Amino acid sequence: MNKVITISREFGSGGRELGRRLSELLHIAYYDQEILTEIAKRTELAESYIEQVVEQTPMMSFPIHVGRSFYPMMNPALELTQTVMVEQHKTIYEMAEKSDCVIVGRCGDYILRDFNPFRIFVYADLESRIQRCLERQTETEHYTWEELKHKIVSLDKNRKKYYEFYTGKKWGDKINYDLCINTTNVSIKEIAGSFSKLFM
Amino acid sequence: MNKVITISREFGSGGRELGRRLSELLHIAYYDQEILTEIAKRTELAESYIEQVVEQTPMMSFPIHVGRSFYPMMNPALELTQTVMVEQHKTIYEMAEKSDCVIVGRCGDYILRDFNPFRIFVYADLESRIQRCLERQTETEHYTWEELKHKIVSLDKNRKKYYEFYTGKKWGDKINYDLCINTTNVSIKEIAGSFSKLFM
Repeated sequence: MNKVITISREFGSGGRELGRRLSELLHIAYYDQEILTEIAKRTELAESYIEQVVEQTPMMSFPIHVGRSFYPMMNPALELTQTVMVEQHKTIYEMAEKSDCVIVGRCGDYILRDFNPFRIFVYADLESRIQRCLERQTETEHYTWEELKHKIVSLDKNRKKYYEFYTGKKWGDKINYDLCINTTNVSIKEIAGSFSKLFM
Repeated sequence: MNKVITISREFGSGGRELGRRLSELLHIAYYDQEILTEIAKRTELAESYIEQVVEQTPMMSFPIHVGRSFYPMMNPALELTQTVMVEQHKTIYEMAEKSDCVIVGRCGDYILRDFNPFRIFVYADLESRIQRCLERQTETEHYTWEELKHKIVSLDKNRKKYYEFYTGKKWGDKINYDLCINTTNVSIKEIAGSFSKLFM
């Protein structure tokens, strides 16, 4: 069975960078944006729409494990949401079947539980996460400290709801992960180097 | 400054074994029972009494940071408790000043905060901890599954109270640690080998 590392992360904790660097150091596949691209191809929906669906609170959509059951749909938007979620599930599963990989977010730890993945949760204190986001703003982004704080808290609230709705488990509760890594005031590059050794 | 690794752990999670093995693999000092022995020497109290003091709920004693202040004492037992706590603080601090080391329990992460220690929290699901305790019973111990469950829950409750009383922080809350390691169904020997690489 392929080696699968899943990374769940608080927004701004550097979890995505850690995942990418781990995959590079371990010479294994890294799936992140690729998942959206593949779903877009399969569903013929825009990537931006898919991103919105998988980041929004899914309280009105159906849990993953319902799969393609023929529940009566309330409206076409809900049907699209379910389609996206089912395709995401299938896409992620098929990617893990192909080769060793690192998958960031998207309830990967739950979707890939058959693979007995190594489940990492990445977190940091709020101040450090705001600071990391500030340093990584693009030229067109001009968020203030307060705005970023609000954005981070709100996005994490969504991630939490999303994860808990689909998996029935508590997001960020350490018992649901094999390893929880605190990235407060640390260089992601350096810790990726250290933690990659766990898998060599 | 010396490299200090502190290990906090849920009872039965194998944290003590992990600490001992890490120290062996890293060829650095390991302090655990040695701390009690040293306090016993300094205070002329029995090790068994000291163990009882540092494991019991400290609600009636004084926080570490009060140190040797001259508060009026309520009774000789409380005075003894405070003496033990102050000596424990001093002993642990002096040990960390001597050389690189691993310190298990005893609020080491808090007492040694000046050393910027690498703070590990070791945990596992309750079933796995009961199983680990069952397998490690000595010939004179004959706890049942239910008795061990009760013992583990009760001891962790004390550890939690003890930690929170002395440090003012939440025991087991991942933000207070650099790394949280889940030892559910894993071999401590194997993960010690893996995690020791983080420090090499």
